[in-house]
Amino acid sequence: MSSKIRVAVLGATGVAGQQFLASLPNHPLFEVTRLGASERSAGKPYGDAIRDASGKVSWFASAPLDPAFARMPVEDAAHMTTDGIDLVFTAVESDAAKILEPRFAEKLPVVSTASAFRYEPDVPVFLPAVNLDHVKLIDLQRKRRGWKGFVTPGPNCTTTGMAITLAPLVQFGIDKVVMTSLQSVSGAGRSPGVLALDIVDNVVPYIAKEEEKVEKETKKILGRFDGERIVDAPIAVSCTCTRVNVLEGHTESVFVGLQKRPALDEVKRAMQEFGKSFVELGLPSSPRHLITVSDDPYRPQPRLDRDNEAGMTTTVGRLREEPVLGGVKYVLVSHNTRMGAAKGAMLIAEYLVKTGYIG
Amino acid sequence: MSSKIRVAVLGATGVAGQQFLASLPNHPLFEVTRLGASERSAGKPYGDAIRDASGKVSWFASAPLDPAFARMPVEDAAHMTTDGIDLVFTAVESDAAKILEPRFAEKLPVVSTASAFRYEPDVPVFLPAVNLDHVKLIDLQRKRRGWKGFVTPGPNCTTTGMAITLAPLVQFGIDKVVMTSLQSVSGAGRSPGVLALDIVDNVVPYIAKEEEKVEKETKKILGRFDGERIVDAPIAVSCTCTRVNVLEGHTESVFVGLQKRPALDEVKRAMQEFGKSFVELGLPSSPRHLITVSDDPYRPQPRLDRDNEAGMTTTVGRLREEPVLGGVKYVLVSHNTRMGAAKGAMLIAEYLVKTGYIG
Amino acid sequence: MSSKIRVAVLGATGVAGQQFLASLPNHPLFEVTRLGASERSAGKPYGDAIRDASGKVSWFASAPLDPAFARMPVEDAAHMTTDGIDLVFTAVESDAAKILEPRFAEKLPVVSTASAFRYEPDVPVFLPAVNLDHVKLIDLQRKRRGWKGFVTPGPNCTTTGMAITLAPLVQFGIDKVVMTSLQSVSGAGRSPGVLALDIVDNVVPYIAKEEEKVEKETKKILGRFDGERIVDAPIAVSCTCTRVNVLEGHTESVFVGLQKRPALDEVKRAMQEFGKSFVELGLPSSPRHLITVSDDPYRPQPRLDRDNEAGMTTTVGRLREEPVLGGVKYVLVSHNTRMGAAKGAMLIAEYLVKTGYIG
Amino acid sequence: MSSKIRVAVLGATGVAGQQFLASLPNHPLFEVTRLGASERSAGKPYGDAIRDASGKVSWFASAPLDPAFARMPVEDAAHMTTDGIDLVFTAVESDAAKILEPRFAEKLPVVSTASAFRYEPDVPVFLPAVNLDHVKLIDLQRKRRGWKGFVTPGPNCTTTGMAITLAPLVQFGIDKVVMTSLQSVSGAGRSPGVLALDIVDNVVPYIAKEEEKVEKETKKILGRFDGERIVDAPIAVSCTCTRVNVLEGHTESVFVGLQKRPALDEVKRAMQEFGKSFVELGLPSSPRHLITVSDDPYRPQPRLDRDNEAGMTTTVGRLREEPVLGGVKYVLVSHNTRMGAAKGAMLIAEYLVKTGYIG
Repeated sequence: MSSKIRVAVLGATGVAGQQFLASLPNHPLFEVTRLGASERSAGKPYGDAIRDASGKVSWFASAPLDPAFARMPVEDAAHMTTDGIDLVFTAVESDAAKILEPRFAEKLPVVSTASAFRYEPDVPVFLPAVNLDHVKLIDLQRKRRGWKGFVTPGPNCTTTGMAITLAPLVQFGIDKVVMTSLQSVSGAGRSPGVLALDIVDNVVPYIAKEEEKVEKETKKILGRFDGERIVDAPIAVSCTCTRVNVLEGHTESVFVGLQKRPALDEVKRAMQEFGKSFVELGLPSSPRHLITVSDDPYRPQPRLDRDNEAGMTTTVGRLREEPVLGGVKYVLVSHNTRMGAAKGAMLIAEYLVKTGYIG
Repeated sequence: MSSKIRVAVLGATGVAGQQFLASLPNHPLFEVTRLGASERSAGKPYGDAIRDASGKVSWFASAPLDPAFARMPVEDAAHMTTDGIDLVFTAVESDAAKILEPRFAEKLPVVSTASAFRYEPDVPVFLPAVNLDHVKLIDLQRKRRGWKGFVTPGPNCTTTGMAITLAPLVQFGIDKVVMTSLQSVSGAGRSPGVLALDIVDNVVPYIAKEEEKVEKETKKILGRFDGERIVDAPIAVSCTCTRVNVLEGHTESVFVGLQKRPALDEVKRAMQEFGKSFVELGLPSSPRHLITVSDDPYRPQPRLDRDNEAGMTTTVGRLREEPVLGGVKYVLVSHNTRMGAAKGAMLIAEYLVKTGYIG
Repeated sequence: MSSKIRVAVLGATGVAGQQFLASLPNHPLFEVTRLGASERSAGKPYGDAIRDASGKVSWFASAPLDPAFARMPVEDAAHMTTDGIDLVFTAVESDAAKILEPRFAEKLPVVSTASAFRYEPDVPVFLPAVNLDHVKLIDLQRKRRGWKGFVTPGPNCTTTGMAITLAPLVQFGIDKVVMTSLQSVSGAGRSPGVLALDIVDNVVPYIAKEEEKVEKETKKILGRFDGERIVDAPIAVSCTCTRVNVLEGHTESVFVGLQKRPALDEVKRAMQEFGKSFVELGLPSSPRHLITVSDDPYRPQPRLDRDNEAGMTTTVGRLREEPVLGGVKYVLVSHNTRMGAAKGAMLIAEYLVKTGYIG
Repeated sequence: MSSKIRVAVLGATGVAGQQFLASLPNHPLFEVTRLGASERSAGKPYGDAIRDASGKVSWFASAPLDPAFARMPVEDAAHMTTDGIDLVFTAVESDAAKILEPRFAEKLPVVSTASAFRYEPDVPVFLPAVNLDHVKLIDLQRKRRGWKGFVTPGPNCTTTGMAITLAPLVQFGIDKVVMTSLQSVSGAGRSPGVLALDIVDNVVPYIAKEEEKVEKETKKILGRFDGERIVDAPIAVSCTCTRVNVLEGHTESVFVGLQKRPALDEVKRAMQEFGKSFVELGLPSSPRHLITVSDDPYRPQPRLDRDNEAGMTTTVGRLREEPVLGGVKYVLVSHNTRMGAAKGAMLIAEYLVKTGYIG
């Protein structure tokens, strides 16, 4: 009998859910035992549930669909029991998450890519290596809500790369951040997603609700847990989020004000060494470096750097002094559907297994 | 007999030179009488000089090549006389401009898209409607250099849109500017230009020498002419220039710190009303509005907005309050090969005709 | 009082319907008096009916939305009366067309971009200049169906360019046609349309039902009206339809077997002179040349040639002898949303006005 | 001491040469001992020789540059000795190949991606699994030319996929082939390569000299070796080669006339089983299947299928009956810089080692 942790994936038929399934075959800790989706898919084998109107299989991950998953029946997530499940991954829209996640969290750990609970005062927004001490908020969450389980969401994909690269700069006294993102189309999923008609030979200068999320989450992620709640980091954050004609990988142009004035070499070293002890935990989905710094002025580029270390490292380049805010500026590339979504959530879950919160 | 101003275009065979020729047929003030290029093209009819190795005509402007230009002989710019010329447009590389432009400026007005002379203390970087009083520097330039003519270059294409949109904000006390550009591939020309292999499904986060130009030119353009020289505007400027997969039109994400705190409506109105008196001059290449402000959060987009008012207006959108620098942030689209290059230079020349410096 | 023909546009909110509206302001013959769409849009002013879920106006034609149309109320097409209408343009999906078009055709002329009736024996598939004599089928259609009006659909966008370029070759005895299309994304509309995720850095080698349509329609369009019905042209047609990453303009690589063996010059001349008498009718939407032939081996290109003559001419290049079928081969570019859709339908309607079938 | 075959790569600094180097680290049979390029690169370490004017390393293969290669000195190919070399891979332009290849072939086996010798009567155009018996032409070549070595070039990248998929159809009596290619930009290399300005939102309907190569090579590759020379296969071939906006992977739409009329299932099986005995040789660069047949009508797609079996299998889809030529039609995707270039040449060399012609 398998001693793996039994996992249900909710929202399994969507793009984000598919990313979970693409990462789960042969996972050393997790075994998928249940799949949940909308009522429409319920009762069908997964391989049929993801067919579109014309009968075409809509599987979008680069790894092929595991035949074992193709045969698994899909259940109506709204009416699933929690039997035979140790852990729930949710990849549903925010509105559905608001209803589904608490229902499962009453009994089980829920690790989510949805934003529904990110801004609740008793819910951490975990980011591996960045704010591990926020894990303690889970204890308070359980107590306050009377849950046996808990909800812990990962950050927005655009927040992820920025917060990871800011984390090693905290020691230098970050006070201001100005950021412009150049986001890939995969971040918009597939329904409706981004039409070629809208993005070919073009830039779209707005992504609804994105900027608010980045500004709010960055302060919470870098915040301090005072034993009862997370006190937002005292950082002023301002950003403009745009969509560019790139398939995968978000590029971000970041300007950071630092109260101390470290030399560029110090900053570079801090980034390169960031997360060493986390990496040494040897978690299955962990990159070897949280941050990879390039000296080539033409890097990072999303097509060339998004897959570095299986899409789990954040690549930084063009590190320079920043005269307006007084600090540094740089460009980063982060893989929005790997570290910034399902695989990032999986890394969180692996850490929670390691620390005993799951399993 | 024509009473038009007789124009020579130098660097006529290159992309920028072609943009000049594309704008000059039927121009009410200017008549092309001479074409200059490198020795290699000398002696050929223009229509042959622009054939590539395989015999293919390399004409890249959207307006067709005027048959009259196709028949004109190309001269070796390095050995051209100034006979029968009243005005020179130069569209050559910076190194060639350093040698060619002074040779012509001894006798003639030279309006240029090259950067060679932009940073000389006695050379203005004119930007229509923005710094018309800098025209007086021409008198000093002539006197100091003993020239009958003069050199006046237009700004870098990336500077253009930003400086135009900053100009109406000067009244609110600009002290800081942070900008990230998303530049189109046409800005890199065609030799070597940007390969599809490098930019499809990608972003390139570096454009050599671009950031330095933008930072330097912005301060000079918005500077104050004190009767003898231009005193740089006391603005801290910091930018990151990137290349995206867009054919034409530069997009810029701008964050501006303002000492006074105008309401957004005031800022919007200042932008919309900017340049009214300049527009009223009715110059042939003038847009009807220097700046067009859109309330649609999804605008401006380079493909949809670059051709507004024949590529001569700068389109601004996403105007919001900016909390980090204390001021406003917005996104702009500027046509880099129209207002940002040859047609912008033509507008300068038209103004210099109006004010008597040419003709 | 206006003496223009009063037009209703059905399916007015979709992409094809918008193309109709984009072409109708200031039309010398037609005046839009009614707009029909689905029940969901009914009762709203058109400008509101085309807002998407987020409130964003979804207007996709390059010409701006006429403010007069923006204010017009949208009616439920399923329950519209025929009062005050002289002509109906329909731009609805095929299933809806099957129900709607006969209902209107009982009383009124219906010119359609839908495929619903194209294959009916008493319905012509008109293509301006190509098969004008098929107009007589309308008389039979009315008689047989007891309608006061009639239905006449334009061809599929991919058939259009091919049939136009084959028409002048009929005199040389076409017996075989092999074609591969490289179709643009605008042909797929917007719901769901083609996602950037599917087409960037890619080709999709299949477009559902397209090949059958092209093969069937080509034979009907080039067929002979024998007084009672259209006898399919005795041509074997075989094609493969693919989607490429182009915004607008279908490219087709055509190989044609000809029983007579004309010289290339003869073929070229036949194409250039094709449709002269039709052009001389001076219809408002008519191109000046049905076919434009280029000698540049690098043409036609969709981005450079789709807008030739306002998207109403078909541009042909690479005309060569074809050794396998014994005839000629060439590449064509046809504007799929202009001549291949709404504007082509308008040209049909204009011809029907000219010949007295409408108005 | 290594017992590997010592290899020189000529044209090592170009894109094709880089593809050779990218495939050679840890090769079980080959060891790179010498690198040749133009005079300009001579004397520099390889890692420096591939820097461009701005000092940027121009390495374009997806596998990283092996540090050992980066340190190797580049020699002037025009003046290299043959000491310490057992085999030469050439990746130079055709004009250079005409001079260089015979010089080396006097003493050594030369496996080439250049077209210079493909059409010589005593030179085979090998294609793994397709025409292995053509190897015997090498003996004649040596004898006739008095060479100790020989030249054997691989086919053009566009020919490769088509000839591989035609080979299993030879048994059904191929008499006619009509093909339209949709080729990727990587096929044009980098100097000058394909500019984004020319291919974004576009198709270019012409690739100089490509169609002639495909027509000629296909007949030679599928020809019969009669003991003295290769008798062209009696197949009429006609094609149109176009460039589309795809980074890697050529797509081809193929129509084949067959004298026998096999059922589609037979054709499919013949393709799937093609090359089994070749695959069983277990050569290091061999795919597991020469041809992979997909039943999904939406496949093959270049982005999704080019990397199948490390870019060494040809993926076929949309297999249908073909009514015009009487046979079958299908779409294929072939990786133009893997099986269609350096890695294909390597597979040839591996086969020649196996059969004793090399080493």
